[in-house]
Amino acid sequence: MKPHLTVHSGASATPSVSPARRLVTLPGKFAMRLGGELQDVQLAYESWGSLNQAKDNVLLLFTGLSPSAHAASSGEDPAPGWWEEMLGPDKSIDTNLFHVICVNSLGSCFGSTGPASIDARTGKPYGPAFPTLTLEDVAAAACKLLQSLGIERVRAVMGPSMGGMSALAYVLMHPGSAEVLVSISSATHSEPFSIAVRSLQRELIRSDGAWQGGHYPPGDGPREGMRLARKLGMISYRSAKEWAERFGRERASTGAEPFGPEFEVEAYLESRAEAFVGSFDPNSYLYLSRAMDLFDVADHGGSVDKALSRLKLKKALVVGVETDILFPLHQQQALAEGLSRAGVETSFVQLPSKQGHDSFLVDMEHFRPAIGEFLAAL
Amino acid sequence: MKPHLTVHSGASATPSVSPARRLVTLPGKFAMRLGGELQDVQLAYESWGSLNQAKDNVLLLFTGLSPSAHAASSGEDPAPGWWEEMLGPDKSIDTNLFHVICVNSLGSCFGSTGPASIDARTGKPYGPAFPTLTLEDVAAAACKLLQSLGIERVRAVMGPSMGGMSALAYVLMHPGSAEVLVSISSATHSEPFSIAVRSLQRELIRSDGAWQGGHYPPGDGPREGMRLARKLGMISYRSAKEWAERFGRERASTGAEPFGPEFEVEAYLESRAEAFVGSFDPNSYLYLSRAMDLFDVADHGGSVDKALSRLKLKKALVVGVETDILFPLHQQQALAEGLSRAGVETSFVQLPSKQGHDSFLVDMEHFRPAIGEFLAAL
Repeated sequence: MKPHLTVHSGASATPSVSPARRLVTLPGKFAMRLGGELQDVQLAYESWGSLNQAKDNVLLLFTGLSPSAHAASSGEDPAPGWWEEMLGPDKSIDTNLFHVICVNSLGSCFGSTGPASIDARTGKPYGPAFPTLTLEDVAAAACKLLQSLGIERVRAVMGPSMGGMSALAYVLMHPGSAEVLVSISSATHSEPFSIAVRSLQRELIRSDGAWQGGHYPPGDGPREGMRLARKLGMISYRSAKEWAERFGRERASTGAEPFGPEFEVEAYLESRAEAFVGSFDPNSYLYLSRAMDLFDVADHGGSVDKALSRLKLKKALVVGVETDILFPLHQQQALAEGLSRAGVETSFVQLPSKQGHDSFLVDMEHFRPAIGEFLAAL
Repeated sequence: MKPHLTVHSGASATPSVSPARRLVTLPGKFAMRLGGELQDVQLAYESWGSLNQAKDNVLLLFTGLSPSAHAASSGEDPAPGWWEEMLGPDKSIDTNLFHVICVNSLGSCFGSTGPASIDARTGKPYGPAFPTLTLEDVAAAACKLLQSLGIERVRAVMGPSMGGMSALAYVLMHPGSAEVLVSISSATHSEPFSIAVRSLQRELIRSDGAWQGGHYPPGDGPREGMRLARKLGMISYRSAKEWAERFGRERASTGAEPFGPEFEVEAYLESRAEAFVGSFDPNSYLYLSRAMDLFDVADHGGSVDKALSRLKLKKALVVGVETDILFPLHQQQALAEGLSRAGVETSFVQLPSKQGHDSFLVDMEHFRPAIGEFLAAL
């Protein structure tokens, strides 16, 4: 692909492994929800703050599709995490109060078992032989991880984007195992628009001949497909409003390439795509992306309301953003109303952030108080 | 690309040439706005209704990016056109009153000179040697076409989507040549979100090795790139609201293909993409798509207001749709307000259509009266 473009691939962009990362093996068989099983699943996690004696101050944090468990810096690893401004001592997720555990999702490629892991039966990476992954599997693996740490019950389970779906799966599958749910820019299911965007992203990856049906050599694979998929991702993660203010019709310095970038927004997409390629396993991306499409709260009871009625939560916070086109506000309102109907004391916060779905990563001015005030009042 | 997917390419999807199509050659040099020139430009058009003796009942219709000049059926060609329900005797664009001329844009591939045309200097298709195309060139060519038909002045110039930009270019470049402007789901310029979507579509086409830098054999070319670009197009042409109601989480009949379509919305995108591939020249697509990004009313006077102040229009109609993410309503409101400030008697109609940018092609219930009542009152 792209024989006419010069691609600066750089060295491996894979993030270095955080010294704060812990690995846990869950011995034995792990049965996957839609069939198939894994053996001796490994999960990576990081933690912040101290577990109190009663073991009742745990906040379990699930991530979006692409981040690792390195949500914030710590004494062991001063490198900033993906939610550095949100998580730490005296921050919105206050690690003086909470023992925060952030899990790298099952199926991801930052320490947890996923398609890039070696299948002990063959001595080779699972690749496309990895069983179909659902967010219920992600939640079940996280639950087993906590059990292995001696934690049966958490104070709060939280997640943004895909992580919010994983958090929902967690409380749906283990009623009574959490008191509080915090759902950020997430939803009870994926609507067709989001499915279409993610489906096309997956097709861009699969269409790259270097994907080889999922059988690419470790560390290699569909770089161009990932580049294009990331560009489409960025188009869905941000908002037209933000870009209109940020880029307008500003021109990029154009090269000689025919039909190459002419506007600043095109150069921006290019740089964001370049930074992503090589940092995430393409098969992991396919599996986690599809898991988001497959997730549906209604699967846990026949309807969303029936499913939510089984929850034994005390409180919930649902935070949404007006400019989010991937997890639109009306879906988040529906989740909040459903939780409320199910008897959960629910706060619904609509934020005017203009950065679209990604706002939780960048619009700290709005997100810090929204999350901080809710957690402080627990 | 896509070695693992079975693609049903079918026979050539190129629409058969309408017997109602007329071809006109503009003899001599045609200088392009951003440099380069064409020789003996050919333009295709169709017309409906009779030109009156005073030659003052002409309605010039520009098209969106991909349609031909066959906007409606006629005695010569009973095949339905792309705006069949809008245009004809006693319809909203009433051909009992107007002599309607629909032009195939310069740069397109349905009879007008474009990248797939033979360059007389080389005896081969222009391909990527076709000069940079702007919508001002499209408008200038249409103006010369009308002159060749003995028409110096039109009653109305109209266009949806890209056609609205071409119509704006027409009235900006030839003040006094038209009395009325009808802009449908269009804008004074492209915002970064739309540029990003179109830029990625173009990259999908260019990334297909079969594009060969634009030097593919006639009739061949980047079929897979066009397929993927069309899918992205459909995601931007429709709306999340329409799809949520239309598809919900309905499942498609799934095949054995790993990561193949699982939801109905994915099967829909697949069928729409298949229907498009082979029906449009990929280089034409690249040139016209970029022309939309490059268009900016402000180029005609230093600012949008200065440009519009030069217009000598009597009336204008601006129609926009709430669910349009490609040409969002606020841009259409800005156009209407600008025209109004420039002294043009302007009607701005906001339609609640749920089919997004494509609504003008499908939501006839709202569009027919919006356009019909305005034209009837002229």
